[in-house]
Amino acid sequence: MCNRKILVLGGDMRIVTLANSFYLDGYDVTAYGFSEEIEFEAGVGRASSLTEALSGRDIVVMGLPVTNDDITVRTPLYNEKIYFYDVLKAMKKNQMLIGGKITPKIKNLCKIYNIEAIDYFDREELTVLNAVPTAEGAIEIAMKMLPITIHGSRSLVLGFGRIGKILAKDLSALGAQTYVEARRFDDLSWIKAYGYHGIYLPQLKEQLPAFDVIYNTIPHQVLTEDLMKYIRKDCLIIDLASLPGGIDDEKAAQYGLKVVHALSLPGKAAPKTSGEIIGQTILNILADMGV
Amino acid sequence: MCNRKILVLGGDMRIVTLANSFYLDGYDVTAYGFSEEIEFEAGVGRASSLTEALSGRDIVVMGLPVTNDDITVRTPLYNEKIYFYDVLKAMKKNQMLIGGKITPKIKNLCKIYNIEAIDYFDREELTVLNAVPTAEGAIEIAMKMLPITIHGSRSLVLGFGRIGKILAKDLSALGAQTYVEARRFDDLSWIKAYGYHGIYLPQLKEQLPAFDVIYNTIPHQVLTEDLMKYIRKDCLIIDLASLPGGIDDEKAAQYGLKVVHALSLPGKAAPKTSGEIIGQTILNILADMGV
Amino acid sequence: MCNRKILVLGGDMRIVTLANSFYLDGYDVTAYGFSEEIEFEAGVGRASSLTEALSGRDIVVMGLPVTNDDITVRTPLYNEKIYFYDVLKAMKKNQMLIGGKITPKIKNLCKIYNIEAIDYFDREELTVLNAVPTAEGAIEIAMKMLPITIHGSRSLVLGFGRIGKILAKDLSALGAQTYVEARRFDDLSWIKAYGYHGIYLPQLKEQLPAFDVIYNTIPHQVLTEDLMKYIRKDCLIIDLASLPGGIDDEKAAQYGLKVVHALSLPGKAAPKTSGEIIGQTILNILADMGV
Amino acid sequence: MCNRKILVLGGDMRIVTLANSFYLDGYDVTAYGFSEEIEFEAGVGRASSLTEALSGRDIVVMGLPVTNDDITVRTPLYNEKIYFYDVLKAMKKNQMLIGGKITPKIKNLCKIYNIEAIDYFDREELTVLNAVPTAEGAIEIAMKMLPITIHGSRSLVLGFGRIGKILAKDLSALGAQTYVEARRFDDLSWIKAYGYHGIYLPQLKEQLPAFDVIYNTIPHQVLTEDLMKYIRKDCLIIDLASLPGGIDDEKAAQYGLKVVHALSLPGKAAPKTSGEIIGQTILNILADMGV
Repeated sequence: MCNRKILVLGGDMRIVTLANSFYLDGYDVTAYGFSEEIEFEAGVGRASSLTEALSGRDIVVMGLPVTNDDITVRTPLYNEKIYFYDVLKAMKKNQMLIGGKITPKIKNLCKIYNIEAIDYFDREELTVLNAVPTAEGAIEIAMKMLPITIHGSRSLVLGFGRIGKILAKDLSALGAQTYVEARRFDDLSWIKAYGYHGIYLPQLKEQLPAFDVIYNTIPHQVLTEDLMKYIRKDCLIIDLASLPGGIDDEKAAQYGLKVVHALSLPGKAAPKTSGEIIGQTILNILADMGV
Repeated sequence: MCNRKILVLGGDMRIVTLANSFYLDGYDVTAYGFSEEIEFEAGVGRASSLTEALSGRDIVVMGLPVTNDDITVRTPLYNEKIYFYDVLKAMKKNQMLIGGKITPKIKNLCKIYNIEAIDYFDREELTVLNAVPTAEGAIEIAMKMLPITIHGSRSLVLGFGRIGKILAKDLSALGAQTYVEARRFDDLSWIKAYGYHGIYLPQLKEQLPAFDVIYNTIPHQVLTEDLMKYIRKDCLIIDLASLPGGIDDEKAAQYGLKVVHALSLPGKAAPKTSGEIIGQTILNILADMGV
Repeated sequence: MCNRKILVLGGDMRIVTLANSFYLDGYDVTAYGFSEEIEFEAGVGRASSLTEALSGRDIVVMGLPVTNDDITVRTPLYNEKIYFYDVLKAMKKNQMLIGGKITPKIKNLCKIYNIEAIDYFDREELTVLNAVPTAEGAIEIAMKMLPITIHGSRSLVLGFGRIGKILAKDLSALGAQTYVEARRFDDLSWIKAYGYHGIYLPQLKEQLPAFDVIYNTIPHQVLTEDLMKYIRKDCLIIDLASLPGGIDDEKAAQYGLKVVHALSLPGKAAPKTSGEIIGQTILNILADMGV
Repeated sequence: MCNRKILVLGGDMRIVTLANSFYLDGYDVTAYGFSEEIEFEAGVGRASSLTEALSGRDIVVMGLPVTNDDITVRTPLYNEKIYFYDVLKAMKKNQMLIGGKITPKIKNLCKIYNIEAIDYFDREELTVLNAVPTAEGAIEIAMKMLPITIHGSRSLVLGFGRIGKILAKDLSALGAQTYVEARRFDDLSWIKAYGYHGIYLPQLKEQLPAFDVIYNTIPHQVLTEDLMKYIRKDCLIIDLASLPGGIDDEKAAQYGLKVVHALSLPGKAAPKTSGEIIGQTILNILADMGV
C-alpha cells in the first residue's frame, strides 16, 4: 500500500467512487470540488478551501476529462468554479497531478508551473477495462430498442479492436449469432478461434441484409452509402465510435435506417465500475513509478 | 408443412409476429381483431367481419392471455369488442381454438359449444423458451439500474428452475460472479457442474451481505424478514416471480431495500421473439396431433 | 462438521481420496482393506484386523461397486479377501453401512444382520456430478482419436439427459458445432436456449452425413441399421451408454463404422475428482439424516 | 477461386489434407513425394517423376518444415529422397514455392535459382489458428495425466500470448479455475475482462502452492528455482514453449516436479485441422498477392 496522501479535486460520480475506494484501501484521502450533498465515506476528508485541500497532499487526482474549457477544472458536482490557474499556482513541485484527457493547453500550463502531470486516459489498461462497460452499455441499448432477444439475434460487430473483442464475447455468450467484420487475416483468425463468424470486409455487402443489429466500433465510415443499401430497415445500428463516429447520419436517414450514437458509455452506464477502473489505473501508474 | 388454414383472432404484437411468421412459412393466414393501422405482411388476409374471418379456417389462434374478463377476447390492438360467446357460437365442430391462459370459464364455454380448445401456455417448451426473454429482461433492468457492470458484479439468483437456469447462464457468461441458491442437493450439483457457485439455503444468511444484486425466481417468500436484515441497502432486488411474487414489499421498505417487480417480461422486452416462441409451440402442438 | 467416526473398507483410489478428504475436513478416519503400499494422509488410522477396524466406528464406507461377486467386498488395492458375511456379522446395530451399487443379495444380507445400508449410487447428485468426469473422459477420447480439433468439429450428442447436457456444454464451450438429438419438444427448447442446435429425432437421418463425431448417451439403440447407413466412415462414434450400450457393434462393423465403448469413465479418467464426488454425496446423506 | 495449378511436394498428413481440400475447392492439384499407399482424393493427380510433377504447375507447396537437413525436402511419407537442388533447378521463374519454416540456406538457394519463395509459417494468422490445436493438445495431456477433472481444477497459464489466450479460454470454458500470469498491466486488464484471474508476476510466488496444473507458454525461464520451491509435488507442469522451453528440467527434477514437454502439438494432435490451417493461410497469401 502506498502511503501517499491524495486529494480528489472535482470530477463526477466516478471520482467519488474512486475516493471511497482509495479510502477503504487505507489511503489518506481528502475531497474538494464537490457540493455538500455529495456523500463520501465518513473517513474521507472535506476541505473548505483550495489551500486547505492542497495542504500536505502528494497527489492531486482529477476527473475525466479534467476540463471542458481549458480554463476551469470540470466539477459537475460543484456549484462554484475552480480555475486551473489557481490550482497549479498553489501546487508545490513535489505534488503530482493525475487526470484524464489532459488537454495540450493544460499540459502546457503544467509545464509553466513546473508541475508533473500524468494522464491516466493514455494508459492502455484503462481503455481495455473501459471496453467492458461500453459493451454492456451497447447491449443494454440493443435490449431496450430491439423487439427480439439478443439470444438468437443476427448481430454484426464492425471492427475487432478492444470494444469489438469484448462486445463479440458478450453477444456470443448471450447466444447471439455473432458476426465480426475485419480487414486483416490475423484478426479473422482470432475471430474464428474465439468461435465467432468472421466476415472479410470485401464480402460484407452480400451478408448485410441478414442482420438484426449492427454495432459499429470503427471511427471512420465503413458503412458507406454503397453498403447502406443492403441493410434492412428494421435493423438497429448502434454507433460506438468516438465522434464524428462511423455512420453518416444524413445518408442513413435517406435510407430510412435507425442509428443510435452511444458515446462515453462507461461513465453513463456504470459510473461506479468506471470509477474503480480509473482508481486501479492510478494505482498501476504509481506502481510503475515505484511510488 | 401443414396446409391447415389459420385465423389469428386478437392479441398483441406477439400475435402479429406469429401471423407473419406463419404466412412466410407458407400457411394461409387471415387476421381479425386488429385495427387497420396494424400492419401485417402483404399476403396475410384481413377479414371485415367475424363470420368472414371464421369462414373456411381450420384453426383459430388467440393471444396470451385469451381474455382479461372471461367475456371478451383480449384485443389490445383493436377498438371494438369481440365476445367469446359470438366466436364460439359461430365456430364449427371441426374448427379448433388454440390460445394462451384459457380460463376455466372459457374452457367451460368451449365445452358447451363443443369446440376443442388447446392452451399453448400449458406447454413446457413455451415456458422454457420464455425463460430466455425473461432472463434478458431482468439483465436489462440490472444494467439500467445498477451503477456497476454485470461483469464482476456479485449476483445472486434465488431458485434454479427454468428462469434461474437461464439467468445464471447469462450472468455467468457476462462475467458476473454468479451465485445460485437452492434447497436440493441435486440442484446444487447441477449448479456446480455448470460452473456457478451454489448456496445451500441454510447457509444463505451469512453470504447475503456480499451481493450487489439479487434476482428472485421463487414464487414464495424465501427472503424472509430474518434474511432481509443481511442485505445491503445498495443491493438491487429484482423479483421475477409471478404475483404475489417472492418479496414482501412492506417489509423490504422497512429495511430500506430497493425492489423492482418485473412481470411478463417476454411480451414486453421482446414481443417479436415472444411471438415466434408462441408460433413454434403451436407448430409443436399440431405436430403432436399428427395434423 | 459431523463428529461421527468413519471406517473406509476397501475400494479403489477413489476411496483413498475420500478417506484423505474426510480426514482433512476434520473427521476421525480409519482405513482397512488396502495393502501397505497404498499411502494415506498421515493422520488416517490403519487397522490390522477387521475387528480393530470396526471398533468404535459409526459409519462404514465402501467403494463403488461394493462387490463384484456378492460374496466379498471389492478390494482392488488389497491382496486378501474380506467377506461380507464377516463384516456384517461383526458390525453393531448402531453402525451404518454406506456403499455404492449395493446388490439385492447384499441388501438382503444387511437386513438379515439388521444393518442399515445406504447406497450413495442411488443419489441424484452423484449421478449429476459424475456427468462432469464422464463428459471430459469422452472428450479426451475424441481428442486422442480424431485428426481434427474439437473446435470447429461437427459434433452430435444423442440424448439430453445428465451426460448429454454436460457434454453439449463442454463441446460448445470448446468451439465445436454442437448438435443434440432429442425426442421431446421441451428438451429441444432447452437445447435451443443453451445455444446448441437441436435435432428432432425424425429429422436425424438427413443430417447424419455431416458429423465428424457422434457421442451416444442413450442406453438403447437409437442408431438403428437404417440410420447407420448415413454415417460417414471417418466419423468416430463414442458410446457412453451403460452396457449393452446404444450401438449394435456387429451392424456397425458391417457398415465400417468406428465405435469406441467408454464405460465407467469417472473412476478411470479422474479417480480423485470421483472420490471427492462420492465423499460429497456421503456428507449430503448424513446431512439429510440430520447426523 | 484461383485457377492456379498446384503441386504438393512432400510433407506429412497435413499436406495430404491440404491437397484434398484444395482439390475439393476446385483447384487442379498434383501430388509428388508420397508413397503409393498414401491415399488422396480420386481427382488429385499423382506424378511419377519430379519433371512430370513440376510440369505446368504455378505453385509448389511444401510441408512444415520444408526440410530437416537443408539438403532434402522433408518427405516423411515417401521412401525416396528429393533434393532441393533438383527441385529448384527444375523450377521455372514463373513458378512459386510456398513452404513452412524455410531455412536461411534454402532461402539463399532459392535466390540463386531466382525462385520466389514464400514462408507460410511467417504469417500471423497461421500462428493464431495453430493456437487452437496446441491448446487442445495441452488439455488432452492434462486430461490424461491428472487424476482430477479440468472442471474445478486450479489451473495456471504462464503468459498471455496467442497460446495463453486460447488455452485460458478453453480451460475457463471447461470450468477450470483459470489463473493467468502476466507482467504487463494491459494484459492483466484483458485477463480480467475475459473473466480469468490475473496474477501479476511479482505476486506469483505466494499463489503457486495452490495449483494442480501449470501450463507454460513463455519461451524463457519464468519458473526459476526460487519459484519452483513453491510448486506442489503433485502439480503437473506442461511446457508448451518452443525449445529450449521455459522449464529447467534438471532443477525441476531436483524439486521432484513432474514436467511434460509438449512440442509441435498441432501436427500431432490434429493433423487434419492443421493441414486445413496451412491451406487457408496459403489462400490468404494468394489473395494478398492478388493472385
